[in-house]
Amino acid sequence: MNTFGTFFKLTTFGESHGPTIGGIIDGCPAGLKLDLDAIQLELNRRKPGQSAITTQRKEADEVKFLSGIFEGKTTGAPIGFQIENSDQKSKDYSHLKENFRPSHADFTYQKKYGTRDYRGGGRASARETASWVVAGAIAKQLLPEIKITAFTRSIGGISLKKDYPETSGLDFSEIEQNPVRCPDAEMALEMEKYIKQIRKEGDTVGGIVQCVVQNMPIGLGEPIFNKLHAQLGKAMLSINAVKGFEYGSGFSGTKMKGSEHNDLLETSGKTKTNFSGGIQGGISNGMDIYFNVAFKPVATIMQNQETIDRKGKQVEIAGKGRHDPCVVPRAIPIVEAMTALTLADFWLLHQIQNRNNK
Amino acid sequence: MNTFGTFFKLTTFGESHGPTIGGIIDGCPAGLKLDLDAIQLELNRRKPGQSAITTQRKEADEVKFLSGIFEGKTTGAPIGFQIENSDQKSKDYSHLKENFRPSHADFTYQKKYGTRDYRGGGRASARETASWVVAGAIAKQLLPEIKITAFTRSIGGISLKKDYPETSGLDFSEIEQNPVRCPDAEMALEMEKYIKQIRKEGDTVGGIVQCVVQNMPIGLGEPIFNKLHAQLGKAMLSINAVKGFEYGSGFSGTKMKGSEHNDLLETSGKTKTNFSGGIQGGISNGMDIYFNVAFKPVATIMQNQETIDRKGKQVEIAGKGRHDPCVVPRAIPIVEAMTALTLADFWLLHQIQNRNNK
Amino acid sequence: MNTFGTFFKLTTFGESHGPTIGGIIDGCPAGLKLDLDAIQLELNRRKPGQSAITTQRKEADEVKFLSGIFEGKTTGAPIGFQIENSDQKSKDYSHLKENFRPSHADFTYQKKYGTRDYRGGGRASARETASWVVAGAIAKQLLPEIKITAFTRSIGGISLKKDYPETSGLDFSEIEQNPVRCPDAEMALEMEKYIKQIRKEGDTVGGIVQCVVQNMPIGLGEPIFNKLHAQLGKAMLSINAVKGFEYGSGFSGTKMKGSEHNDLLETSGKTKTNFSGGIQGGISNGMDIYFNVAFKPVATIMQNQETIDRKGKQVEIAGKGRHDPCVVPRAIPIVEAMTALTLADFWLLHQIQNRNNK
Amino acid sequence: MNTFGTFFKLTTFGESHGPTIGGIIDGCPAGLKLDLDAIQLELNRRKPGQSAITTQRKEADEVKFLSGIFEGKTTGAPIGFQIENSDQKSKDYSHLKENFRPSHADFTYQKKYGTRDYRGGGRASARETASWVVAGAIAKQLLPEIKITAFTRSIGGISLKKDYPETSGLDFSEIEQNPVRCPDAEMALEMEKYIKQIRKEGDTVGGIVQCVVQNMPIGLGEPIFNKLHAQLGKAMLSINAVKGFEYGSGFSGTKMKGSEHNDLLETSGKTKTNFSGGIQGGISNGMDIYFNVAFKPVATIMQNQETIDRKGKQVEIAGKGRHDPCVVPRAIPIVEAMTALTLADFWLLHQIQNRNNK
Repeated sequence: MNTFGTFFKLTTFGESHGPTIGGIIDGCPAGLKLDLDAIQLELNRRKPGQSAITTQRKEADEVKFLSGIFEGKTTGAPIGFQIENSDQKSKDYSHLKENFRPSHADFTYQKKYGTRDYRGGGRASARETASWVVAGAIAKQLLPEIKITAFTRSIGGISLKKDYPETSGLDFSEIEQNPVRCPDAEMALEMEKYIKQIRKEGDTVGGIVQCVVQNMPIGLGEPIFNKLHAQLGKAMLSINAVKGFEYGSGFSGTKMKGSEHNDLLETSGKTKTNFSGGIQGGISNGMDIYFNVAFKPVATIMQNQETIDRKGKQVEIAGKGRHDPCVVPRAIPIVEAMTALTLADFWLLHQIQNRNNK
Repeated sequence: MNTFGTFFKLTTFGESHGPTIGGIIDGCPAGLKLDLDAIQLELNRRKPGQSAITTQRKEADEVKFLSGIFEGKTTGAPIGFQIENSDQKSKDYSHLKENFRPSHADFTYQKKYGTRDYRGGGRASARETASWVVAGAIAKQLLPEIKITAFTRSIGGISLKKDYPETSGLDFSEIEQNPVRCPDAEMALEMEKYIKQIRKEGDTVGGIVQCVVQNMPIGLGEPIFNKLHAQLGKAMLSINAVKGFEYGSGFSGTKMKGSEHNDLLETSGKTKTNFSGGIQGGISNGMDIYFNVAFKPVATIMQNQETIDRKGKQVEIAGKGRHDPCVVPRAIPIVEAMTALTLADFWLLHQIQNRNNK
Repeated sequence: MNTFGTFFKLTTFGESHGPTIGGIIDGCPAGLKLDLDAIQLELNRRKPGQSAITTQRKEADEVKFLSGIFEGKTTGAPIGFQIENSDQKSKDYSHLKENFRPSHADFTYQKKYGTRDYRGGGRASARETASWVVAGAIAKQLLPEIKITAFTRSIGGISLKKDYPETSGLDFSEIEQNPVRCPDAEMALEMEKYIKQIRKEGDTVGGIVQCVVQNMPIGLGEPIFNKLHAQLGKAMLSINAVKGFEYGSGFSGTKMKGSEHNDLLETSGKTKTNFSGGIQGGISNGMDIYFNVAFKPVATIMQNQETIDRKGKQVEIAGKGRHDPCVVPRAIPIVEAMTALTLADFWLLHQIQNRNNK
Repeated sequence: MNTFGTFFKLTTFGESHGPTIGGIIDGCPAGLKLDLDAIQLELNRRKPGQSAITTQRKEADEVKFLSGIFEGKTTGAPIGFQIENSDQKSKDYSHLKENFRPSHADFTYQKKYGTRDYRGGGRASARETASWVVAGAIAKQLLPEIKITAFTRSIGGISLKKDYPETSGLDFSEIEQNPVRCPDAEMALEMEKYIKQIRKEGDTVGGIVQCVVQNMPIGLGEPIFNKLHAQLGKAMLSINAVKGFEYGSGFSGTKMKGSEHNDLLETSGKTKTNFSGGIQGGISNGMDIYFNVAFKPVATIMQNQETIDRKGKQVEIAGKGRHDPCVVPRAIPIVEAMTALTLADFWLLHQIQNRNNK
């Protein structure tokens, strides 16, 4: 169950403090010329230590490809890759051996498997997502015409005043200009300040990421169990710390009437409004796809908390090491990567679903 | 892609106006004594025409089992079943042949497949979910100790004042006592009135379903791509008209600090709070699971709407036939069924994941 | 585990003496015009009671399609179908309740599942293969350019004198002209006589089916675990009573030297010889595919045999009812159907494996 | 399609002359104490250069585990591993860039993918099977009670005089005492001589491997499409150079009558004979499983052969480098590994198929 996708498949392995993490991408078509720099660039966006508001842990995070690429192109063979864990300070985590950190996976792993690699969270560490970013970057290159843009919509209670469709009109080139990855420079400053304050308190905070997919082809997605939004939802809910997903009108759509919510069709095939979020009956209709992803506050805080040890005894525990006060800025490239993986999977399937498409 | 689940698998077929819908359940263990009445009861909860606020379309909705059951018990062979489409008024839908209804799947099916069975929505009809309810009812019987309860939390802007954990203390026996399926009798009346008024306007309205899972075993769910909440999210987003999913603290958790949000562990292994929604690191921790599911207003309204026909010409269209003004009350058993299917799948997998569990 | 295929998927259900058997075909592309008569024709070739050397059991064996076809074409939705079990003489099999027939699946089903539907073999009956023939007939129509021909190569010790490539030059139109389905009319007579004699003895006999696939496209099959011949082998070994599979030079190739066995390439891209059986590295090379399938003698004989009952007590048992003295003639359409299903699966996959194929 | 298994899953990557080959094992239960030396031992049995009758190519073939093992035990997380390609003499293969070797995968890879990594056969090299041996060795440790023994039954026309059940009585400890891996020391000498002579001629030869599985539990295997023997057949046909598979009575069983072939049940639940090969209705019956695997002669010979280059021009080609004159001796551990993987997969599934097994 460490595989994502059915046609464009990513299978991963690795723990936070093992020698390496990595994966195998199976199903990438042959003949795709890969821009390796672009892949590394995505990894750098996810990397720890990239700004003043992320963890100061250092990882080179350089991906090494082991197979499936020959003379710069994919060969149709599986693409094996790995990323070394260069900065393993195992000592920092020795206190985790006996104790279950609150709202972490320590307790559930121990109960499920009867054992766990406790160093740095082991398999449960968000370090795993580096492999997703590698695969997602390749998926993006498979679908160059589709434009996937994620950005920070809110940090704690501080939120963009605009929502889609206004957000789609924001200056997306601003996103990488600030450490929060918010397309509104002013809001970004406010958010950054807030994160710094939270960190000073030894605390953490959550936020919402919005993702907008432009230039979508029509017809991606399955009608019943693998609806496009259901797979996107699954993809997003796979990301560490995610608590919710909504697309199109989402939760606010529950308060609307049908006469307000329906997207009327124009002769161009486009719709006047886009409460459907670019998906109808589980299938893309060519309009922008947009969705929100809710991230909870990071569980590791620099304050004392009550918890129990493996024997059930009450103990106190406090975060050590270097942690993010807020995962949202580093989650942006992960949201994009998982979106790209989802779309690549459906795009491949779509090629063989209609005999008359040939 | 018409299969849900990996171990306890449901594969379905059928269109709204074909001779029958149905499915095959593969992977149900042998030796399970089935209560067939309980299965039919779940179907009746989903059935059209059951109350004054649902569509008046009549379907007998009787499930007929074709295989896999012998002398009242499952044999380990696949369970084939079907439900006849008894009340097919194909004439009502003849106007759908040429036109694309707004916010329906007509346009996307036609573009994806180059054709579609337009009668009553064909494969896109929510009639499909009757098969899910059958399979979910069997999944429930496989896991009798787990208690899954869904109910209406809001209709349009009218919402229960309470949220989890208070909602878990509501009188769940009240749910089936009112046509809205709300555990608060007073709110239920208000919601019912509102739905009736909306129907008079020829309009429709959305709402939110909450689901609470009690008596959960520890250890269900996968750590990486098949996190328990990711699969629940996918399951819910597979239901027609769903626009969003959140579990535990959900979207409101994004505004909390880690120090507020963390669920401190007690010596019993339980947590003081349950913002995690019973799931940590993708794996159940034994606390209640709870989540919200957002339903949009039904797309078919009894008012004139602008749209286009298959040739792209602008036309006007209005709903005909008998439709639900609000899907939420009938969605309750579907939410429960998809929850049960998801849990059964993980429960089977869990049996083989730990050598020392034997 | 009642599903065959990954892209063109068949999932089946049903027992020999239940109300119906059937299945769901998922993944058939939209827009395929179906010749329903051709499907029924394949079913008739498999049907019991078709000649003097098959069982006299009567089954109408009419397939009824329930979904996925609209106005004569596939819609991309799953194709549900069923075949009624019209001639269920359950009484004939009542003696099977307590006893395990030798070389049947009675013992293993009982031990594995703790129960079994003993009527007529239940799920283990070869009646199941009628559903395969339906799906295979649709697969054949998806790939009209590929010509799949199976025929009887031997019955007991009576064998065609010719082997491939000579067999590919036989008059295949002769196959359906005799009840044995052997392309050599003279040999067919001899085989028929032998089967009749065996039946008189209350005994049964095995045989070998050869299958030749002509007009194969290049490139079908996967290099590693889903080699084209590995999937064909799995498909054939799924057929009841099959004990062996060999393709190309097969077992006799083990005695050859490389210098004899290698197929030298000509400038046309064809090879001078075809010991490879049309597959190299798991992938079709455009030459004919040919393979042999070994069928054991039917286990049900009309003679007394020692066996045990469910309590382990020694008992005597003899076949009752109407059974085939030799399955080979009726197995011909099943071999073709499973070949077609295998090729359809790979053909769909192949469409998306090479970016430059577009 | 680079994954084998459904529950105990192996996914592999790597080319003969890339930096490394390797894989990910997903689904191995937690809490399994691993004997790493035993795994390396299996690899050594497959290693090139181990005797005078195998290729003199040297590979250290040391497996390095990257994840999923902690304090000597499996954790339930995926087990990543790799084996470095230490002895890449890429120059030896430069002549392969332009030419298609007869009866190799060069032509089919090029046509399917439009490109290929031609160095040493790339992905098509049997070096891939080293990864299978690693995974198979772990599967063996998961099922310590089952005894899997493969051995050389014939080399070219030189064959063991005995067949099963006599072969099961041979001294299996002899197998590793001779370079041919034949349990009959005298025959082994004869086979060895023959292989040496063939090598002198610059030629190659095939042979047959027999595998016997003892101490089988009852109930492994699926009744319909994943019959135990169908999966074993698929597993064997996945091995490079395999042309055929038969189990139990196999092809010779086609000449028997039912009255001779049927395995009569004794009160112990065992059968008097074992023509069924330990499998009835696709499910193990507790008797020994035995099967034969046919290997063709190695395609690379040290003689001149006619072939074509990528442009279709006729050219001559001769083998260079160091190759096996016969793959059979080194195939023995691969046959065992693939058998173990197949059984492990079914064994896990079997744990959850019968509610009353608990």
